[in-house]
Amino acid sequence: MITLSSDFGSPYPAAMRGVLLDSCTDRLVDISHTFDRGNVDSAAFWLREILPYFPPAIHLVVIDPGVGTDRSVLAVRVGEHAFVGPDNGVLYPVITAFDQPWEAFELTTYEAESSTFHGREVFAPLAAAIANQGVDRLETIHSLEPASTIKELTFPEPTITASSIRATILAIDDFGNAITNIDGNVIADQFGQSVSIAGSQVAIEQSYSFVEPGEPIVTIGSHGNVELAVNDGRGDRYFSLSTYDEIEIQV
Amino acid sequence: MITLSSDFGSPYPAAMRGVLLDSCTDRLVDISHTFDRGNVDSAAFWLREILPYFPPAIHLVVIDPGVGTDRSVLAVRVGEHAFVGPDNGVLYPVITAFDQPWEAFELTTYEAESSTFHGREVFAPLAAAIANQGVDRLETIHSLEPASTIKELTFPEPTITASSIRATILAIDDFGNAITNIDGNVIADQFGQSVSIAGSQVAIEQSYSFVEPGEPIVTIGSHGNVELAVNDGRGDRYFSLSTYDEIEIQV
Amino acid sequence: MITLSSDFGSPYPAAMRGVLLDSCTDRLVDISHTFDRGNVDSAAFWLREILPYFPPAIHLVVIDPGVGTDRSVLAVRVGEHAFVGPDNGVLYPVITAFDQPWEAFELTTYEAESSTFHGREVFAPLAAAIANQGVDRLETIHSLEPASTIKELTFPEPTITASSIRATILAIDDFGNAITNIDGNVIADQFGQSVSIAGSQVAIEQSYSFVEPGEPIVTIGSHGNVELAVNDGRGDRYFSLSTYDEIEIQV
Repeated sequence: MITLSSDFGSPYPAAMRGVLLDSCTDRLVDISHTFDRGNVDSAAFWLREILPYFPPAIHLVVIDPGVGTDRSVLAVRVGEHAFVGPDNGVLYPVITAFDQPWEAFELTTYEAESSTFHGREVFAPLAAAIANQGVDRLETIHSLEPASTIKELTFPEPTITASSIRATILAIDDFGNAITNIDGNVIADQFGQSVSIAGSQVAIEQSYSFVEPGEPIVTIGSHGNVELAVNDGRGDRYFSLSTYDEIEIQV
Repeated sequence: MITLSSDFGSPYPAAMRGVLLDSCTDRLVDISHTFDRGNVDSAAFWLREILPYFPPAIHLVVIDPGVGTDRSVLAVRVGEHAFVGPDNGVLYPVITAFDQPWEAFELTTYEAESSTFHGREVFAPLAAAIANQGVDRLETIHSLEPASTIKELTFPEPTITASSIRATILAIDDFGNAITNIDGNVIADQFGQSVSIAGSQVAIEQSYSFVEPGEPIVTIGSHGNVELAVNDGRGDRYFSLSTYDEIEIQV
Repeated sequence: MITLSSDFGSPYPAAMRGVLLDSCTDRLVDISHTFDRGNVDSAAFWLREILPYFPPAIHLVVIDPGVGTDRSVLAVRVGEHAFVGPDNGVLYPVITAFDQPWEAFELTTYEAESSTFHGREVFAPLAAAIANQGVDRLETIHSLEPASTIKELTFPEPTITASSIRATILAIDDFGNAITNIDGNVIADQFGQSVSIAGSQVAIEQSYSFVEPGEPIVTIGSHGNVELAVNDGRGDRYFSLSTYDEIEIQV
C-alpha cells in the first residue's frame, strides 16, 4: 500500500499515480493533494495526525517548495512503515510520533528530466522501488545510503500561566476550525465554562453543536488539541486567524 | 466494497481510510467529500441519486452536524447493501429509493476518544466490522440492536397549477445547475417551447448546448428532475438561487 | 485498469464509478475531475501530458460540452491503451503523442436515459464493455464501428524571431503557473539570464526557488514547456494571464 500526499492540487498527482502503477501493483490511497501550498509545517502537522491510523504502508509525501535545489531526498523506515519525501522537516513529526526507532536513508544520486516535478521524477520512482524491494530491504535500493542527519521540525509550545495561555495556530482545517498548539487536556475538565478571547467570552464545550449555529466555541478537536471553532461557521474568520498566528486566551 | 461520503473536505477523510484499511481489505470508493457542510437535505438528495448505481456495497455516510450529541448511530440493510451513518435523515431517501424492505440497526454503545470526529472513531470502525462480518450478518455485530424508528427525511413537493409551478431548489451542482423538485416528465413533451421565470422567457431544451453560451435554459437533469441552467455558465447565479429557495415558473 | 477524467467536479464522477464497478472489476484511477469546465483544449493538453505515464489502461475522458448533441462517441485503440470520449478533439493530442498507429471506432447507436449525462449513460458503460472484452477485441463490441475521421485538435505554435517570442498560454495549473506553447529547449541554455515581459525583466532559472518568494520567474515546467511562474505565488495573477491569452517575450 502506498499513500500519496502533496500540495499539487490537480492534475499533477495523476502523473505520480501513473509512474507508480507503471512499476508496482500496490494499492494507492490518497491522503490529500490540497495541503497548503509550500507550507511544510502545516502539512507536517496533518501527516502526524493522519498517517498513524494506517496499517504498514509506504507514505509518499511531496510538499517540496525547494524542488530543484540541493535539499536531500529521504526514505525513512519506522517499523513496517516507510516514508519518502524531501528533507525539509515535513516527515519529522510523523516519524517521531510512532515512538519507535527509525532509520533514515538518503538518495545520493538521481536523474530528473524535470527540475520542477521531482514528485514524478524522483519520489514516486523511489516509492515504487521500495514497494517492490520491501520496506525491510531499503538498504538494497540503488543509491540509497544511510543519512547522517535529517532536518528536524518541531511545533512551537504554548506559554501557559495561571490566568492566560499564549498559543499558536498550527493549522486551519477545511471547516475553518483553528487548531492551536494547546493540549486538549488543559481544558478537558472545563466543559460548560468559558474563556475570554480578544475581549469576548467564548464557551468551552464538548462538540460544535453544544452552541447555537453561528456561535463561537472552544473545544477539543479530533487531533486532541484545543480548537477555536464556530458551530455551522468558520472559526478562522470569526477570530481572524491564519496558520502561525498567535492568540491570547484568558482563563 | 465500501463507499465513502462526507462533508469533510480534506484531509480528514484520509483518517477514515486509514481506520478502514487497518481492519479490512475491501476496495474503498469515494462518492464525495465536498457535500455542502452540515447540509443533511442536500447530501440526502445526492446519495439517493448516486448510490443506487453501485453494486452491493457498504456505504459509509458522515454528514453529521450533530456529532457528539445523542443522535443515534445507524446501520441499515437494504438487500445486499448496508448503509452506515448518523440518524439525522441523511440515509432515509436512498434507503427508501431501492423499493425493497429495509432493516435498521442502532449502535447502542460505543467509545469515542474524540467527540468531534465520530467518522473516524465510530462510523468507520462500524463499516469495517460490517465488511468483515458480512452485510447478511449485521445482527452478530457487538452492540448493534434493531432500531425501533429512524428519522425520516422527505423532499418538498412542488405546487403545480394550470398556469404555474411553485418549486423548490433541492440542490445546486458544481456546474451551477439549480435542481428543482419538479419531475422531468412535467416538461418532457415541451422541448422547443419556453417558460417565464421572474419575467423572462427561458427556453425548454433537451441539453445545455441547445442554447447559446451564456443563455439560460430549462432542461431535465441526469437525476430526472427539472433543472435551471445556463449553457457554459451557472444557473444558480443567473437566477440568483440557493438550495431550498423557492421559485415560480409560469408555463 | 480504467482512468477517469472529467470536468464534473463532485459528486457526478461517483455515478460513473458506480456504473463501472457494477459491470467490471478493474482498478479505477482518477486523473482529475476539475479540468476547466467545457475547456476541451486545456483538458487535451493535460491528458497528453499525463496519460502516457500510465501502463496499458482504458482511459475514460468526459469533457463534453456538446453532450446531447450529435457529436460522435469514440473508442480509440493505441497499442495496449484504449481511449473513450466524445469526438470533440479532446482525445487527439494524447492519441497522437504515443507515436504509434491508432485505430478509431465510433459508437453508432446507443440509448441514454439522460441527455445531459452521457458520462454515466454512454461513456462509462462503453469503457466497462472494453474492460470486459479486452482492448484487443474492440471490434467485437456491439455498435462499435470503425470511424472514418475523428476531430483533430492541435495547439497553436509560437512565433519566434531573433528578438522576441510571441506565445500562447495553453493552460494554467493549480499553482498558477502559466504554461506557454514554447518548447523548453528554447531557453534551456539561458538559465541565469533574463527576458523582458511587458517591460519588466524576469529571470530565467531552473526551478521556482532560485528566485525570492513573490518574485517572477521564467522556467521549464514538468511538461517540458516554458512556464511563467512566481516563487511561492501565482504566475497567472502576476502576469494577468488566462488560458489562450497571447504574450510577447523579448529575449
